[in-house]
Amino acid sequence: MSDVNAVLQRIDANLPQSLERLFAFLAIPSISTDSTYRAECRRAAQWASDQLSGIGFSSRVADTNGHPMVVAHRKPAGAKRHVLFYGHYDVQPPDPLDLWQTPPFEARMEDGPRGKRIVARGSSDDKGQLLTFIEAARAFIETIGELPVAVTVLLEGEEESGSPSLKPFFDQNKAELKADLALVCDTGMWDATTPAITTRLRGLVGEEITVTTSGRDLHSGMYGGPAQNPIKVLSALVASLHDADGKVLVPGFYEGVSELPEQIAAQWRGLGFDEKAFLGEAGLEGEAGEKGRSVLEKIWARPTCEINGIWGGYTGEGFKTVIPAQAHAKISLRLVGRQDPVAIRVSLRKYLTERLPKGAKISFHEHGGSGAIELAADSPALALAASGLREEWNKEPILMGSGGSIPIVGAFKKELGMDTLLIGFALDDDRIHSPNEKYELSSFHKGARSWARILARLAEWK
Amino acid sequence: MSDVNAVLQRIDANLPQSLERLFAFLAIPSISTDSTYRAECRRAAQWASDQLSGIGFSSRVADTNGHPMVVAHRKPAGAKRHVLFYGHYDVQPPDPLDLWQTPPFEARMEDGPRGKRIVARGSSDDKGQLLTFIEAARAFIETIGELPVAVTVLLEGEEESGSPSLKPFFDQNKAELKADLALVCDTGMWDATTPAITTRLRGLVGEEITVTTSGRDLHSGMYGGPAQNPIKVLSALVASLHDADGKVLVPGFYEGVSELPEQIAAQWRGLGFDEKAFLGEAGLEGEAGEKGRSVLEKIWARPTCEINGIWGGYTGEGFKTVIPAQAHAKISLRLVGRQDPVAIRVSLRKYLTERLPKGAKISFHEHGGSGAIELAADSPALALAASGLREEWNKEPILMGSGGSIPIVGAFKKELGMDTLLIGFALDDDRIHSPNEKYELSSFHKGARSWARILARLAEWK
Repeated sequence: MSDVNAVLQRIDANLPQSLERLFAFLAIPSISTDSTYRAECRRAAQWASDQLSGIGFSSRVADTNGHPMVVAHRKPAGAKRHVLFYGHYDVQPPDPLDLWQTPPFEARMEDGPRGKRIVARGSSDDKGQLLTFIEAARAFIETIGELPVAVTVLLEGEEESGSPSLKPFFDQNKAELKADLALVCDTGMWDATTPAITTRLRGLVGEEITVTTSGRDLHSGMYGGPAQNPIKVLSALVASLHDADGKVLVPGFYEGVSELPEQIAAQWRGLGFDEKAFLGEAGLEGEAGEKGRSVLEKIWARPTCEINGIWGGYTGEGFKTVIPAQAHAKISLRLVGRQDPVAIRVSLRKYLTERLPKGAKISFHEHGGSGAIELAADSPALALAASGLREEWNKEPILMGSGGSIPIVGAFKKELGMDTLLIGFALDDDRIHSPNEKYELSSFHKGARSWARILARLAEWK
Repeated sequence: MSDVNAVLQRIDANLPQSLERLFAFLAIPSISTDSTYRAECRRAAQWASDQLSGIGFSSRVADTNGHPMVVAHRKPAGAKRHVLFYGHYDVQPPDPLDLWQTPPFEARMEDGPRGKRIVARGSSDDKGQLLTFIEAARAFIETIGELPVAVTVLLEGEEESGSPSLKPFFDQNKAELKADLALVCDTGMWDATTPAITTRLRGLVGEEITVTTSGRDLHSGMYGGPAQNPIKVLSALVASLHDADGKVLVPGFYEGVSELPEQIAAQWRGLGFDEKAFLGEAGLEGEAGEKGRSVLEKIWARPTCEINGIWGGYTGEGFKTVIPAQAHAKISLRLVGRQDPVAIRVSLRKYLTERLPKGAKISFHEHGGSGAIELAADSPALALAASGLREEWNKEPILMGSGGSIPIVGAFKKELGMDTLLIGFALDDDRIHSPNEKYELSSFHKGARSWARILARLAEWK
């Protein structure tokens, strides 16, 4: 372990330079869902690729039909094991912009209750997280001259927009991407001082719907009454998705959803999770969702249907007495267990279409789909990674679930036959996807140290 | 009537110059609901005031707390009668902009099925309409040298945003504004060849609601399930406003709504109104609203509740898995008979507030309110105006209702003790408040001729 100690010292000594690199990365507005930022996405990919080349990886920016991938390799002679590290360089749109205290793409340090933290869009999701791994690799190479295992790095630029290019890219580059194990740094810690490995992830079905009732916007004085109003129709459709107990009413939705085994339920009860504090931190005064389920169960083990956006008619300042021609909503369904994203999309579309009143039409636009993931909690690689985390944090890592969706994990298994370890250093209050996103300096610093220890441990993998 | 003939000839001969003036007026984007256009509103007021000064009116632009009023007088010595003409120089916002075939504030002539027409925001509502009156007055002054009756012109700039400055302005200028009769040119013809006098107008209650469920936008993966979603809450509230038969469920809403007297119902049935053509022209494939009522009854004699705008969460390109902190809607209720706008607003707010689930808050913002109007159909002034219209169009004018709301008419009666004649030359297919708004050249030309005849007739008023 003396080798690792030198690496850790290097990470500590180089923290100012690591932060400079992170700030430069965060300055690139690589918003994948908005085509206005196409060039910025490529710029972020090139920046990351240059970083990897700079520490001796053989790296390239690979074109896809969407935003490019970064693929980089460094395979030491005699390395017994080979890991594929995955991250994403794209970020969520920063709106609503007016709620940011400082511009989202001008990173800054601020003092928080746990010490310094980095505020910027992407600081936590996922630029800060993915750099923890690259900085760990850099420290190995700059001290010992080599990595303890062979490493392939794969960075995508469409994680926030459904990863449409991933499967075609896997199909074309299977041999190049195959490794013994995938590592993904896009998840969180249990709390600020307790590391975690995430073994459960929800799946996701994204759908955009448009209700059309007339050929053009109409004056609500001249037509109000006999004219069908698409906002009314859409509201009724949205309101029809749940019953009074929070259950989703789309037929077949709960097929493949199992009750939590008592052993796991007991484990979760033992975590001492503070529901009130969790909801309170988000400013939530009431609790919604399925009746009779705990907050952790609702997030980690139950499916949901959320409306992520709705719009139609006049939404500007003042008033406009219009009956619009169309109204729109963006809907996402989070999946668990063996729920089938394809069957659920079909059923959702049928359910909504059947509920349309006369004179209203509906159209659908797909925004990605993936099933839920449950990873083995007893693999040798997981035990080694847990050792590394324990050494860094002096605490037993928690095996936890996540309400989020990371479609790549399913693709690694299905397309490349690889298991994944999900290890990340984000915190619940990082405000990812929200204004004023932040990443704790301790997450960034000790995250890099954690990866150094995990890589060293994985060299022992038989 | 020889005097009028000279005036009519002048209107015909001067049509090209009249159109030039209209196009200049339409080029000013006087959008009253958007504070960005504050200076443009003042520019439109000044433009109109200059026109009136130019034909010998004593005219001024009068400040208010909002957009200014234009007040102009021309009182011939010996004129027996005095009319107040009202119009508004403000226009609706032009969005959605991408549906305009040409820029909304660059007026153009195009060929339509009824001849030439003028396409621009405000061409029909209300710049084109109000200029028909000013051009008639101009023709009188430029031929005979004087008007047949005393005329006060009042133009406001807040008609499209609830007319908040009107009552204070009336309070301060009662003596100056009082006349024998008000004339309002903000309504339509029965059809392209049949003139009309509107005697029924619906009232309006405008309300903006905001549902808040959390302190900030949340990630729908991390919080989806236990977090209350304001879009769901808002959709359920909107969906709760009507029953399956199209009736509004707000308590007390129908108080003051009478069934149509059989005499009027029979009159309307006799109009030969083509419901299918009316709905079809707007691209409406089905008919909504209260079950068992005719289209004309729904628009002229029944109250409604419409959602004019809804927004919340991510509404841009692509997808963002967010649970927003807030969702919003703009709601308008059209009133008839003796429905009380104040009581209805109170009841609506109570109804929505009572339906909130735990953890959701609601706030309200008022956007104007006015009761419905029913005008006497048998006054001497109406008979004289009807004669003028009959002479111009060679058809009996129809006494009709309108689904729209013109709050000024109630204010004229209540604040100044004046009756109003609602005479306008708009057509149902003018697309007012919609992209590609137009005004028929025949409406503009024969509208001015109609006002000349009406003014001449009103000089005979005993």
